[in-house]
Amino acid sequence: MEESNFSDKVITIVGLGVIGGAFAMALRELKPKGLYGVDLKTETLKKAESMGIIDQGYLDPQEILKRSDLVVICIYPKLIVDFVRKNKHNFKPGAVITDTSGVKNALTKEIIKILPDNVDFIFGHPMAGREKRGLEYASREAFKGANYIITPLERNKEENIKLIENLVKRIGFKRVSRLSPERHDEIIAYTSQLPHALAVALINSEAFTQEVGAFIGDSYRDLTRIAQINDELWSELFFTNRDNLVKQIEMFEQKLGAIKKAVLNLDKEMLVENFKEASRRRSEL
Amino acid sequence: MEESNFSDKVITIVGLGVIGGAFAMALRELKPKGLYGVDLKTETLKKAESMGIIDQGYLDPQEILKRSDLVVICIYPKLIVDFVRKNKHNFKPGAVITDTSGVKNALTKEIIKILPDNVDFIFGHPMAGREKRGLEYASREAFKGANYIITPLERNKEENIKLIENLVKRIGFKRVSRLSPERHDEIIAYTSQLPHALAVALINSEAFTQEVGAFIGDSYRDLTRIAQINDELWSELFFTNRDNLVKQIEMFEQKLGAIKKAVLNLDKEMLVENFKEASRRRSEL
Repeated sequence: MEESNFSDKVITIVGLGVIGGAFAMALRELKPKGLYGVDLKTETLKKAESMGIIDQGYLDPQEILKRSDLVVICIYPKLIVDFVRKNKHNFKPGAVITDTSGVKNALTKEIIKILPDNVDFIFGHPMAGREKRGLEYASREAFKGANYIITPLERNKEENIKLIENLVKRIGFKRVSRLSPERHDEIIAYTSQLPHALAVALINSEAFTQEVGAFIGDSYRDLTRIAQINDELWSELFFTNRDNLVKQIEMFEQKLGAIKKAVLNLDKEMLVENFKEASRRRSEL
Repeated sequence: MEESNFSDKVITIVGLGVIGGAFAMALRELKPKGLYGVDLKTETLKKAESMGIIDQGYLDPQEILKRSDLVVICIYPKLIVDFVRKNKHNFKPGAVITDTSGVKNALTKEIIKILPDNVDFIFGHPMAGREKRGLEYASREAFKGANYIITPLERNKEENIKLIENLVKRIGFKRVSRLSPERHDEIIAYTSQLPHALAVALINSEAFTQEVGAFIGDSYRDLTRIAQINDELWSELFFTNRDNLVKQIEMFEQKLGAIKKAVLNLDKEMLVENFKEASRRRSEL
């Protein structure tokens, strides 16, 4: 892939939370012409400035958007729609916008309705979420070796898709794939939302007691790490992807039911077959 | 706790797999009078000898058991019963035996029936399992900071329970707890067997495809790590603890069902309540 040059680009990050902050840190290394931040909190902007990860922060995005060649929006999905609606006349003509939202189908449809023709929105999803929220937990390391999904739309220009692909590879993402927004949401319901639902259900089981911490190993610790969950963000993600997630939960319930049945019936052949298949799949991952 | 002295003790490890091997490495540091290994494979014994983690290996345990003050049995639960039955007249009078098996209730009952009065069997469970099997994956680091459960029986001598507690703390285990065998099996069904069932069901879902590897993040990776599972060992653990495990699966199914219902009904209050409770529990773990 041809290397894009970012030294002639003004980049603005909208939302300096754990993901936006990591983007700022990572983009800094590409030495863009200017790197700016927009946030609702003065405190966060001041902190980002003093950390040196942005050149300047803005509470009001109007002025800086007019000068930005690239806008990376790192806020909750519903707020993205509000942001684009409010700022649709503030984007620089020819600007490329991208996001980091975990659901795509409904979002892309909403955005397309309101987006001016002279800007291009390339939707993206870094598979590098964190349990903790806020700039203080932002880590540039989170992106290294992680997966990235881009969900191109018909109206996207190929050169702009390539620009974003190039950008995320330059900041450490390893595998960058393209999926339709519909397929993205189906797959993500399985690979991301279902695991979160399982972790929450596991730790919320009635079997949980205060003393349980003395009787756990790495398995329980690993499976419940993501039970520490941003409730605002994840309830929005779950609801926006409701049908896919419910379908995934039901497919999971079937498999768990099969294991339960094998245990109940002391059906060793069935249980071992399940274990062998699981081992095979995991080792090839 | 008073520090026990191991320099006057001959210790024998039965089964030099991933757990027995780690015990050998760790016990070496306590400088016992002698440290020996028993295994079914000459190759494994030779390897352990050449690694210097045992003084000598034995295919036939008879001779070395007669000289061993402490015997650490690191083989599959059912094989433990066979081993004790075959060797009940080979143990040194006054010897302390311990095991590392993941289920306790049925095992302790079986062993008590056949164990001579002049030896003491202190049952234990290191919460430090590994996905890989075999001496080549044994790691002394696995024990550091991990939990240990001891399930004392009425016939155990307090000084011998303390000896094992002391031993496992000396080799790196952090929290050493005592539980009845019944309670151990109830808790372990929740903290260890259920997570393994969930990991297997997740990766065996029909939603899994070859391409899924490009669309996963740390959450899916963490939740499926233990899906790479020793099928012989874990089918035995699942079957031996059948009733507790089935009960735990059903309690989990209830919680997952509640989450599914909240998603279906777009019941934000219910979903957020689940997320907040999960976050609270995880952060206190």
